[in-house]
Amino acid sequence: MTNPLAQGSTIGILGGGQLGRMLSVAAARLGFKTCVFEPAGDCPASHVANYHLQASYEDESALKKFADSVDVITYEFENIPTSALDTLEAIRPIHPSREALRISQDRLIEKDFLTNLGLTVAPYAHVNSEEDLRAAVAKVGLPAILKTCRFGYDGKGQARLETEADIAPAWEAMAGAPSVLEGFISFTKEISIIAARGPSGEVSCYDPGENVHEGGILRTTTVPAVIPASLRTDAVLLAARVLNALEYVGVMGVELFVTPNGLLVNEIAPRVHNSGHWTQNGCTVDQFEQHIRAVAGWPLGNGARHADIVMENLIGDDMDRVPELAKSADAALHLYGKAEVKKGRKMGHVNHIKRP
Amino acid sequence: MTNPLAQGSTIGILGGGQLGRMLSVAAARLGFKTCVFEPAGDCPASHVANYHLQASYEDESALKKFADSVDVITYEFENIPTSALDTLEAIRPIHPSREALRISQDRLIEKDFLTNLGLTVAPYAHVNSEEDLRAAVAKVGLPAILKTCRFGYDGKGQARLETEADIAPAWEAMAGAPSVLEGFISFTKEISIIAARGPSGEVSCYDPGENVHEGGILRTTTVPAVIPASLRTDAVLLAARVLNALEYVGVMGVELFVTPNGLLVNEIAPRVHNSGHWTQNGCTVDQFEQHIRAVAGWPLGNGARHADIVMENLIGDDMDRVPELAKSADAALHLYGKAEVKKGRKMGHVNHIKRP
Repeated sequence: MTNPLAQGSTIGILGGGQLGRMLSVAAARLGFKTCVFEPAGDCPASHVANYHLQASYEDESALKKFADSVDVITYEFENIPTSALDTLEAIRPIHPSREALRISQDRLIEKDFLTNLGLTVAPYAHVNSEEDLRAAVAKVGLPAILKTCRFGYDGKGQARLETEADIAPAWEAMAGAPSVLEGFISFTKEISIIAARGPSGEVSCYDPGENVHEGGILRTTTVPAVIPASLRTDAVLLAARVLNALEYVGVMGVELFVTPNGLLVNEIAPRVHNSGHWTQNGCTVDQFEQHIRAVAGWPLGNGARHADIVMENLIGDDMDRVPELAKSADAALHLYGKAEVKKGRKMGHVNHIKRP
Repeated sequence: MTNPLAQGSTIGILGGGQLGRMLSVAAARLGFKTCVFEPAGDCPASHVANYHLQASYEDESALKKFADSVDVITYEFENIPTSALDTLEAIRPIHPSREALRISQDRLIEKDFLTNLGLTVAPYAHVNSEEDLRAAVAKVGLPAILKTCRFGYDGKGQARLETEADIAPAWEAMAGAPSVLEGFISFTKEISIIAARGPSGEVSCYDPGENVHEGGILRTTTVPAVIPASLRTDAVLLAARVLNALEYVGVMGVELFVTPNGLLVNEIAPRVHNSGHWTQNGCTVDQFEQHIRAVAGWPLGNGARHADIVMENLIGDDMDRVPELAKSADAALHLYGKAEVKKGRKMGHVNHIKRP
């Protein structure tokens, strides 16, 4: 095992959103300081971080200053510019690794990686032109979804194709970006598994949760997911295969479809994941502390679930419900301190707890 | 009910130790920012607070700046200079109230207050001179403990008297400070109850915990305390009487002795309390969030206990045990990020969890 990070060390976090915020709190709980690198001011993570370095990912001297001021670097989002990673990695270790980022930053590379591991994904085809898209539709079938290979999240950078008439506008919507066409598959539910791997190779998975999306945004995650025990085992084995193949260090979110033919991988996220927020009220060690433990070279913590939970995202005007939720005996609120309520913006989440 | 504090408001916290640290985290969880006022640099609370105003309690302009920058003020310790409170209260509300502070800052006033409420305390007598101390010994008996009325904590400012020969040195140890002689009482255990009261008058108590002290410092708190149901009820009624008498807003720690004649009040602390740290892993809403809820005018949260817990303080060299504790499946670690390990210094705590 690598040497565990000493008390009082500083963990650098790239990204100052709610994931960085909750990572900062978890790091503090274990006696670490945090430095958050984030271009935006008054970001959620800055409220609970020891330092907030406000600078652009193009600012090489700020990146160097950041790396020099921390002992290890992690991140809350995968779309970090490669040039920034080059600068940082020359100074301090980054966990999870560059390889995990390289794969998850590009849908095509990710799907190829998963397929090569022997895992099942939805039918897909690479699209670099309208002509490619026509060929891809012929291969994958309709309906289908066209997604840019890079920088898409929460339903952005996507176009749905129902008929051949949608081909031209869909390709136009990608603005020339390399894309992937994904075929629709028939699934009964969406689940995800939050898995962690430490530097010594130990792997620990949280119970799978059942996800409901609305408009491309996660609405609720319910644990336990109602799936057969065999699928539960499959989910763990599958997640471990991905983590081990990458010699991964940290927490990963793996989104899965439950189909009549078993599990199919939707996507992987090399970071703590929205569908793992239930662990804050359902486990002794939540996904944020688990990630920090892995990144800091500590042993992984106990992620056994001790309650049934429905995690509900509070999106936009859902914030109007906070006064009512504050009165509920089974609701644990987690608000992100975002200054402005916007439609579609994740403002917080609530864990509705049912104890056995 | 008063208007609840709006999202994004700032809560000012006087004191930057571990209690301020855990209050800051709880405030962030509810979407609030925090500003910590603390003379020391690199203090535990500063690592997770939005701002740290580093200044002395004698610095009136800094106090004014602090009060102007926050929406409401609370504190993590009771020995705040009166002059500072005068400055602050002229600008922003302080919860819990000045009256709670006035009483708990002075052992004599506190004992008189509790006695006047009809509660039982150990026999005591006011001591202002060696002659007073002789008379007090005659009244209270020996052995006894002499304590300064003000500014004592964790065994400091105290002298134990076994025989009459201890009278002169004990009084000398007080360095002329007004003091109280407390008689020893025969108790079977020490318990404490953490109680909260909101601005609308609602009261909520956590399950009593059983405390073990070593060298005047809390070593462990075990929940549930093994006491008869009638004493559990007495503890709740007694705490509510204290809170209501003060029209208290916030969390209070009430230390009690279990005696053959029922409960006897040892002392009250107008703040979150070390013996309530178990709530972080035993309740949906812990004592820190409960305090923030009260101070912010939110409804009190659900403090029902869902696990059996032994909270153990990590004092000084106990930090050497952290690597071992980190491996334990039932241990939840909470470290304070203090730069230097010192004998007798509280460095963190661990909640040993047993689920039913």
